[in-house]
Amino acid sequence: MAYHKPEAKTVQDLKDIAHKLRIDSINSTQASKSGHPTSCSSLAEIMSVLFFQQMRLNMKHPRDPSSDRLILSKGHAAPILYAAWAEAGLFPVDELKNLRKIDSDLEGHPTPRLNFIDVGTGSLGQGVAVGAGMAYVGKNFDKADYRTYVIVGDGESAEGSVWESLHFAAHYGLDNLCVIFDVNRLGQSEPTSLQHKMDVYRDRLEAFGFNALVVDGHDIEELCKALHCAASTKSKPTAIIAKTFKGKDFPDIEDLDNWHGKPLGDKAAAVIKHLQSQIVNPNVKLTPKKMCKSGQAPEVDINNIKLCAPPNYKLGDAVATRLAYGTALAKIGADNDRVIALDGDTKNSTFSDKLRNAYPERYIECFIAEQNLVGVAIGAACRRRTVAFASTFATFFTRAFDQIRMGAISQTNVNFVGSHCGCSIGEDGPSQMGLEDIALFRTIPGSTVFYPSDAVSTERAVELAANTKGVCFIRTSRPNTCVIYNNDENFAVGRGKVVRQKPSDEVLLIGAGITLYECLSAAEQLEKECITARVIDPFTVKPLDVDLILEHGKQCGGRVVVVEDHYQQGGLGEAVLSALAEHRNFVVKHLYVPTVPRSGPPAVLIDMFGISARNIVCAVNNIFKK
Amino acid sequence: MAYHKPEAKTVQDLKDIAHKLRIDSINSTQASKSGHPTSCSSLAEIMSVLFFQQMRLNMKHPRDPSSDRLILSKGHAAPILYAAWAEAGLFPVDELKNLRKIDSDLEGHPTPRLNFIDVGTGSLGQGVAVGAGMAYVGKNFDKADYRTYVIVGDGESAEGSVWESLHFAAHYGLDNLCVIFDVNRLGQSEPTSLQHKMDVYRDRLEAFGFNALVVDGHDIEELCKALHCAASTKSKPTAIIAKTFKGKDFPDIEDLDNWHGKPLGDKAAAVIKHLQSQIVNPNVKLTPKKMCKSGQAPEVDINNIKLCAPPNYKLGDAVATRLAYGTALAKIGADNDRVIALDGDTKNSTFSDKLRNAYPERYIECFIAEQNLVGVAIGAACRRRTVAFASTFATFFTRAFDQIRMGAISQTNVNFVGSHCGCSIGEDGPSQMGLEDIALFRTIPGSTVFYPSDAVSTERAVELAANTKGVCFIRTSRPNTCVIYNNDENFAVGRGKVVRQKPSDEVLLIGAGITLYECLSAAEQLEKECITARVIDPFTVKPLDVDLILEHGKQCGGRVVVVEDHYQQGGLGEAVLSALAEHRNFVVKHLYVPTVPRSGPPAVLIDMFGISARNIVCAVNNIFKK
Repeated sequence: MAYHKPEAKTVQDLKDIAHKLRIDSINSTQASKSGHPTSCSSLAEIMSVLFFQQMRLNMKHPRDPSSDRLILSKGHAAPILYAAWAEAGLFPVDELKNLRKIDSDLEGHPTPRLNFIDVGTGSLGQGVAVGAGMAYVGKNFDKADYRTYVIVGDGESAEGSVWESLHFAAHYGLDNLCVIFDVNRLGQSEPTSLQHKMDVYRDRLEAFGFNALVVDGHDIEELCKALHCAASTKSKPTAIIAKTFKGKDFPDIEDLDNWHGKPLGDKAAAVIKHLQSQIVNPNVKLTPKKMCKSGQAPEVDINNIKLCAPPNYKLGDAVATRLAYGTALAKIGADNDRVIALDGDTKNSTFSDKLRNAYPERYIECFIAEQNLVGVAIGAACRRRTVAFASTFATFFTRAFDQIRMGAISQTNVNFVGSHCGCSIGEDGPSQMGLEDIALFRTIPGSTVFYPSDAVSTERAVELAANTKGVCFIRTSRPNTCVIYNNDENFAVGRGKVVRQKPSDEVLLIGAGITLYECLSAAEQLEKECITARVIDPFTVKPLDVDLILEHGKQCGGRVVVVEDHYQQGGLGEAVLSALAEHRNFVVKHLYVPTVPRSGPPAVLIDMFGISARNIVCAVNNIFKK
Repeated sequence: MAYHKPEAKTVQDLKDIAHKLRIDSINSTQASKSGHPTSCSSLAEIMSVLFFQQMRLNMKHPRDPSSDRLILSKGHAAPILYAAWAEAGLFPVDELKNLRKIDSDLEGHPTPRLNFIDVGTGSLGQGVAVGAGMAYVGKNFDKADYRTYVIVGDGESAEGSVWESLHFAAHYGLDNLCVIFDVNRLGQSEPTSLQHKMDVYRDRLEAFGFNALVVDGHDIEELCKALHCAASTKSKPTAIIAKTFKGKDFPDIEDLDNWHGKPLGDKAAAVIKHLQSQIVNPNVKLTPKKMCKSGQAPEVDINNIKLCAPPNYKLGDAVATRLAYGTALAKIGADNDRVIALDGDTKNSTFSDKLRNAYPERYIECFIAEQNLVGVAIGAACRRRTVAFASTFATFFTRAFDQIRMGAISQTNVNFVGSHCGCSIGEDGPSQMGLEDIALFRTIPGSTVFYPSDAVSTERAVELAANTKGVCFIRTSRPNTCVIYNNDENFAVGRGKVVRQKPSDEVLLIGAGITLYECLSAAEQLEKECITARVIDPFTVKPLDVDLILEHGKQCGGRVVVVEDHYQQGGLGEAVLSALAEHRNFVVKHLYVPTVPRSGPPAVLIDMFGISARNIVCAVNNIFKK
């Protein structure tokens, strides 16, 4: 693909558009009295060239699966992104003045409430992972021509997550990915650590496997040439390292400190006047390139995903839920070829390797880099291209809490699966125990938190998660647990199961995973003491089956004991307390892991940290004194 | 400092010790029937040279502030670290057989329950940040000769956090830091992405500003020379990139897949026999170097830190708690010169710049890399060298949840300060709003969570945090709030304040930060409707003042309304519910941010998302129907 320099007229038009984008960014942030016009200005030529010379877009349907993708990782430059779409004709330029208003979706940072945004950005350093996920899908699953662009700020390139993702993109030869670094030298509170050391950026990016091009980020022709080079470079992704100036072409503001995140105030009029004086053709109008007919993404149907065969266990079989996860994953993978799995070098512990063994091409190894793992999964699930299951040890999702949090803002449907929960993992010790994972995932707006206790319910949890919108989390356990459900048992989100009951029950026990079995064992012991206990398996911690708990709690005299292999805060216990908050006449004993556990045999730890059948029996005896 | 090759006898002794460490690692993991002997074996020569040729240790007091530091970032190789300390004489070699036993502190991964461990490791990729924090303190505050060594696995070098910290260490010229990469080629479930591409590691580390030395990690002489080079290289840190083999010298196991995290089982005897045959002098005994008398770390007293002057506000002054944080930080900084602040390029928003302005040398700019920010703070606080306050936007601590979690295992005393909590930040939108930060910090075992509402209580929170053991978190708000406490008001951890009460009160309102003021406003409105409401400011969410809430809740007929600028899960509301769990006859209405907020004016958002005075009045009216 030979490079043809753009004509002089085109170059001038693109320059004019860049200045118009600057003016739009000033106007919108003046109207909102907040925002980041100087962070926009450094990007103006980049945006102009991307939108009006490079990207192939569908202006009628911005999320067309075949169109190019753009992620503004430095989300605080949202005004210029909005301006570019407006100048391209998606909506009236005049609407930009609604920036940050309560009734406008032109928010301070981009969110997919806007039909041209794929993911929320604004927490820095997350865009490259998402872009890499999109590019991986484009290259390997869609096998389509669309390209993915990510714009990264120089300040945010200090985030390690960026380097995880750069490594990932190079490792998988994602030549359909182009990462543009806007090196404008200034952070929020002081210059960046590397300022304009362009050579250092180049050396780092080359060492990380990129085709690294240093350009003047305000030179239209250099940008055009670099983007062409990116599109024609095979087997490695390209980084365009653009030397820019914050507040470029804003007289008395350009390249100066203390102008981060501030509208120009009374300097705006003079700056706009200056910018207008730079524009040769005030009526300049360009339109983005259209998509080619060839190289389109295939149609995909990811609705109504099923286990290809029902669970197949015998009651009493001892099967770890993490193993049942792997089995179910392969089963839904057989049903739909858009089911994919991602893992961070724990696939033989989480059992995501079951999908890899069956369909190697649908497994993405992300190595030990959980932030990238989560970001790639979010990118892969964008535009409903895949049904992504991302797994690692439950506790290691804490590494990617920020990415998961942003996933909710991004309206992602990724399914997360965390194995090795709680102190029941035993000898590996506290660093490997998930004891705050339910708390993490419960905070995510719109999330569904599955905590299946046996193999049958785990398989159904996987099937349900594949079809449930929003972030799903499935918590799996390391030890074997007994199969307690028939293979044809029905499960639904928000519906718990009463697994033991008698009319005489005087106390309700609620447990999940290994503690469900401790509850059952406690109930047997209590029966010898002439106390009968009802036992509930909640199946999903969020949403919790409030009606079931209320009904049976009341039948048990309002006496409830909740037991979980998790810390006190934010887990199953507090979920139950929230469910009962507005109801008087309940008394709840909550058994949980009260402090940092230690290495030891699982059964010893469960007892030592207060969540064994013995502890439950004590709690029940105690509750009758309340 | 000229390099003198070690004598042939010394080299042989070090080789013999390396094999003894291998044998110890096999024996201990055989006894525990779990663990990672192959991950130990790749490290044997490195450990031998570090302990018996390089590091200057105090065997009587391993945490001597003047001794060299060693962090085993690849914590799963714990058995060989324990073996090295045992062979050096700290405890009997025989004790190694208690590895991973319930009554031994020789846990699966290292924790500071052992007197020779500074921080817990085992969640990968965190050691370099901690080491960089120690090295920063050694160079800039202690101005002492001790050196810091960090051992990183090649698998974990995929973690972005590692690259954040490498950049940090090079940026600050930490030539007293040496990072050793154990490049043994194999991960847990497959080979690492870079395998033995030593040149790629070197290029990356050089590009990141390190003196990068590639060595044969099983060659004693090469290791000695590289460590000498590291110690004599000025103004930049050194990376020793050691090419090693997993399971080195374990016949039929070395460099083979599928041997991660497994004891050798019935192959152990043959392997030990082989290793013994390699040892020239079975009775070899070396002792670590002693510390020099010169270059010692100074004595430090970080007890009983005080505000140098009491709060100085007028009742009714409008002051943001984030600003009061900065003021208080400078005040305790004036009292004790070991008070330091760290921030991630948000210092002009969190107001940590107040310390920097007063004492520039005690401020550490960590740029936009929150994982490293937290890790450096943990390292800086080790061995009680500093009182560290690490600040950023509250929500960005989600980026470092794993580091904070490990901080609890590490018994750290770092104080975290999160500004810009909740939807009350306004127009910047949901990506910048801390809505899950209380949930995060409440899960941390032993943590203290301050949520001060006015400037006076904020200053006292800072003073208390400086003297409180364990992880402390102070949540500050962006908007101004009125000063409601007198300057001489006393505050204590776990003690709330009743800020409005009458004997006739029928409902108890609990709020903090901006919602405390909404509660007060609601109480005024309710009084017009002839309902009198009591209002409590909890001051600390953890520990919560359970007695106060119980007492006043009962006096108010068991009717409680909790209001918070946070999501439902894990915050103040669920803390209150946990406090009341075992008490019948309470009914709690919980008002919280129910979904992802959006950009808009703070007052509009507070009302739209259900936590305004108007919403509280509705909730109170509703509660009387319960």
